[in-house]
Amino acid sequence: MSLDQPSQKPHDRLAAALAEDLDATNELIRARMASENAPRIPEVTAHLVEAGGKRLRPLLTLASARMMGYEESHHVHLAATVEFIHTATLLHDDVVDESRQRRGKPTANLLWDNKSSVLVGDYLFARAFQLMVECGSLRILDILSNASATIAEGEVLQLSAASNLATDEAVYLRVVRGKTAALFSAATEVGGVIAGAPEVEIDALRTYGDALGIAFQIVDDLLDYEGDTKATGKNVGDDFRERKLTLPVIKAIAAADADERAFWSRTIEKGRQEEGDLDHALTLLDRHGTLDATRAAALGWIAEAKEALAALDSADPAFREMLADLADYVVERVS
Amino acid sequence: MSLDQPSQKPHDRLAAALAEDLDATNELIRARMASENAPRIPEVTAHLVEAGGKRLRPLLTLASARMMGYEESHHVHLAATVEFIHTATLLHDDVVDESRQRRGKPTANLLWDNKSSVLVGDYLFARAFQLMVECGSLRILDILSNASATIAEGEVLQLSAASNLATDEAVYLRVVRGKTAALFSAATEVGGVIAGAPEVEIDALRTYGDALGIAFQIVDDLLDYEGDTKATGKNVGDDFRERKLTLPVIKAIAAADADERAFWSRTIEKGRQEEGDLDHALTLLDRHGTLDATRAAALGWIAEAKEALAALDSADPAFREMLADLADYVVERVS
Repeated sequence: MSLDQPSQKPHDRLAAALAEDLDATNELIRARMASENAPRIPEVTAHLVEAGGKRLRPLLTLASARMMGYEESHHVHLAATVEFIHTATLLHDDVVDESRQRRGKPTANLLWDNKSSVLVGDYLFARAFQLMVECGSLRILDILSNASATIAEGEVLQLSAASNLATDEAVYLRVVRGKTAALFSAATEVGGVIAGAPEVEIDALRTYGDALGIAFQIVDDLLDYEGDTKATGKNVGDDFRERKLTLPVIKAIAAADADERAFWSRTIEKGRQEEGDLDHALTLLDRHGTLDATRAAALGWIAEAKEALAALDSADPAFREMLADLADYVVERVS
Repeated sequence: MSLDQPSQKPHDRLAAALAEDLDATNELIRARMASENAPRIPEVTAHLVEAGGKRLRPLLTLASARMMGYEESHHVHLAATVEFIHTATLLHDDVVDESRQRRGKPTANLLWDNKSSVLVGDYLFARAFQLMVECGSLRILDILSNASATIAEGEVLQLSAASNLATDEAVYLRVVRGKTAALFSAATEVGGVIAGAPEVEIDALRTYGDALGIAFQIVDDLLDYEGDTKATGKNVGDDFRERKLTLPVIKAIAAADADERAFWSRTIEKGRQEEGDLDHALTLLDRHGTLDATRAAALGWIAEAKEALAALDSADPAFREMLADLADYVVERVS
């Protein structure tokens, strides 16, 4: 266990405070991704599960449960569940996006093939439900099966919204709630449920996870236009090249004059991109201040997340502070 | 409801006897595959769910429950669950196999795209778990989450076993148990569980579903070499062209001389197929009598299925007879 230095990032402080729980979670993840019948499964998942993922979602579950006074160890099952669902969606996303890189490394679909990514994702999803069943709580199964349906809906909605200039901020929010915030909010909610927190505080935990997840995704979409590849493992302009309508572009289209609209229509809607288009897109985002406006939107959600935390009267103050700092840190990356 | 004519196929007799339950299942399926947020989902699933699927798996659940004296209506939820899991695996299989036809119609991945097939499959899988949670039985959730993990394992094992001449009958059986029999046996088992059948009879129901599923898949693999496209919606020789090692070929390889082995190595292992190779493969299957031996294997499993049924002392005799006839019918297609 590392020392709690003030210079540590909030995420690392949380991981240090929960070091024992996190070790148990990692051990459970390794044990449950094994397959006697199909040795390829751990090969594919090890790549993802061991590849330096930040375990953000399981940490949210572990922290929520401990913060609300949970003293047993079933929350470790839930943390592993949440990570399995997350990893399954990553595997399927990479097939859907035809991604070549994740976290700065080649994706599983490139190293193995799309087939393995689809099937191993299915395996992890089934394993996630097995873990939940072991916890014996139908309410938790309800929360996480609802979250899983919402995630898939959000991804399908994103497919149909892709390249469609009519996609507005409301549709974007629904996509983001599905693809990202649904699992964040389920992760914090089940932590509260397993701890037997009062209903009003379980609600607040869900709101915290929801707002944090939305901010997290908005920041991710922002980094796609202003990040640096080395730090984020993403290439600037990926979303533009893949004709994804994210908040910075949606805001720019809403403010576009006729010429600008024609540019977005050609590059995003019709996908006829030429050299220099990304630079021009960045100029338009700058002209309408949409990167700043996107950052402001993320900060708004962070404020909401922290407000929800502040209402948790029976929470352990040390954990509450770490979760508040984590919320700040999510937007610090782009401040 | 159609009349119970002796000329009816067992499957149709079962559907007629369960007409009300089956209607309720179909209605539930339609209601639950809807998505307010992502209208593309019912478009993709309607294609599959309405496309004249035989509803074999849901019928097994409905029949098992009623046979064991169940008088309420939660078995309809389980029947829909089983069909959703089945449909999800079909959608993912078609991506994995790069299939172009299913049940004589173009597959969803051809009509839409692989992305929709992956994500809509995920959605149906999540919906299946939501339906189960509504039934409120952790034991049923346990059975069906285990089945889901086994299905995915079987499919991954099939991927690694593909084109590998070392694949023997034991590996084949593990693949078949995973990709097909796991859901059949879960479908019959949960019918017994929801009916509150005695444990020994729940075991027998599971054995019936397992053996029926294995026979069903063996017959399917046999039809690939001797079926006619019009009746089965499959093209003769698809498995050979896709270099899949199924029972007829595994048996032929086990009996092969050096020349024959070289042929299988070139066509299946290395995938260098030339015109006339399928005909030659059929000659080799004939020379070693492996189509007959495969048929005999299927008949052996059917005998096991019927033996399990016969041990169901507290079963309704009419349903028991229909399920026995159904077992016979599964192999009649190739007799």
